[in-house]
Amino acid sequence: MHTYRSMGDILNQSKAEDWRALDPANTLYLETEKGRVVIELAPEFAPKNVANIRALVKEGYFDGLAMIRSHDNYVAQWGDPNEKREFKKAAKKVDGEFTVKFKSDASFTRLPDSDGYAPQVGHVNGFPVARDPKTQTTWLTHCYGAVGVARGNETDSGNGSSLYAVIGHAPRHLDRNITVVGRVMFGIELLASLPRGKAPLGFYETEEERTPIKSVRLAADVLESDRTKLVVFRTDTANFQALIEAQRNRGGEWYKFAANHIELCNVPIPVRLIP
Amino acid sequence: MHTYRSMGDILNQSKAEDWRALDPANTLYLETEKGRVVIELAPEFAPKNVANIRALVKEGYFDGLAMIRSHDNYVAQWGDPNEKREFKKAAKKVDGEFTVKFKSDASFTRLPDSDGYAPQVGHVNGFPVARDPKTQTTWLTHCYGAVGVARGNETDSGNGSSLYAVIGHAPRHLDRNITVVGRVMFGIELLASLPRGKAPLGFYETEEERTPIKSVRLAADVLESDRTKLVVFRTDTANFQALIEAQRNRGGEWYKFAANHIELCNVPIPVRLIP
Repeated sequence: MHTYRSMGDILNQSKAEDWRALDPANTLYLETEKGRVVIELAPEFAPKNVANIRALVKEGYFDGLAMIRSHDNYVAQWGDPNEKREFKKAAKKVDGEFTVKFKSDASFTRLPDSDGYAPQVGHVNGFPVARDPKTQTTWLTHCYGAVGVARGNETDSGNGSSLYAVIGHAPRHLDRNITVVGRVMFGIELLASLPRGKAPLGFYETEEERTPIKSVRLAADVLESDRTKLVVFRTDTANFQALIEAQRNRGGEWYKFAANHIELCNVPIPVRLIP
Repeated sequence: MHTYRSMGDILNQSKAEDWRALDPANTLYLETEKGRVVIELAPEFAPKNVANIRALVKEGYFDGLAMIRSHDNYVAQWGDPNEKREFKKAAKKVDGEFTVKFKSDASFTRLPDSDGYAPQVGHVNGFPVARDPKTQTTWLTHCYGAVGVARGNETDSGNGSSLYAVIGHAPRHLDRNITVVGRVMFGIELLASLPRGKAPLGFYETEEERTPIKSVRLAADVLESDRTKLVVFRTDTANFQALIEAQRNRGGEWYKFAANHIELCNVPIPVRLIP
């Protein structure tokens, strides 16, 4: 008899302690006419950039701005199409945080499979990460849904006023080249299904093409009744390791060949809406 | 001085012999109200399934059908929403061609980097492929834009009447589990930007949600003046190997860290429209 325990089984049998709630102080609501995109920030991986994004959000920087770019199989990007809006308190230049020192192994669930882009990969607190034991550095990876800080050629030329989300095959060559600040936890399809921009790099040429952003708010600044109640599957549990194994070797009636491998960006990190 | 030769440089300096035209007898035009999607079939990797798809197209099977599914970060799928349309000459069951025997090394450009899902990966005639020298088998991989034959649990339950295209991070665990018949060469953004379906697995629930398919035709059956003149960068040349190297180690002003690695599905296979 087949005793394969699928991801579905694992999630159905999961308990409350297998999930954690998002932290409202580090959760952004990007509001569009088609709905809300929920982004969780990871300040431990990019403290300065996350602080500046929070400052921008607090001063209402993004309200009334727009999606400025939809580059097929790459990124959707938002910000000020005219690059004229003034900053109040937020900084114009923020040091790039392409990697950070890691403190301990405690929260890292290492993937059993090798990775071509980094010595080690795995998960920390619901984020797909890479690390290099030699340099004791770690970084958030550019998996689908990763949110990063657009920059120019100078490493401190980004400030969080223009952000992008990965909507295609993971551009892992961007890892260690740009600051990743978090990931989309809900509503990525609203960004991924935007019509592509026709100008070079997928930028939109006209105002009519751009999807307006009503506002970006911290969840902590939104009435509790208006918050999106999300929980994310914990990545530091035996059940997460079972989920990885289920995905490394898929069973059931449909699969005829089990890969015995999983690539970091193919590992699902389940998120649930709490009714 | 920096002497980095970028992909842009390589393409700008390329000559006519670096490109090949698509074969009209193995090119499909999927016509939607938003435009044409061009798919190149690879009969050497799936002869029976490609033959049946050509038979379906010849009998007008797809005309007036619809996009039936848009599953975020996974696939867009088309076919008969009602599963009632009758076949004229095409077969109802076609053997799965999940792998095929390979004949020679001549056309295979091997990628220098390792791959977690297969012993060897590289390119054959513009398609990203994997192979296993032990079993002497090769297969088309599920990179972005790959087109495959939907099937049920039985390996011969697919017939090409419902096809999908990969629109997200490569689901390489599908490799060797399903028949891949080709890849989207032009217009993938029309499939990738479809609104996602709300039913399980991204299926659409209502007719209103579905994007109609006007027709699917073989390019060879379309007036030459109405064809999309495309050329694809040859993958059996020194210039393609230079392109891979440029992408493995990106230079220029913007990149601060070169990966010295590229994952198969991150290798661009440039396609150009001939005016």
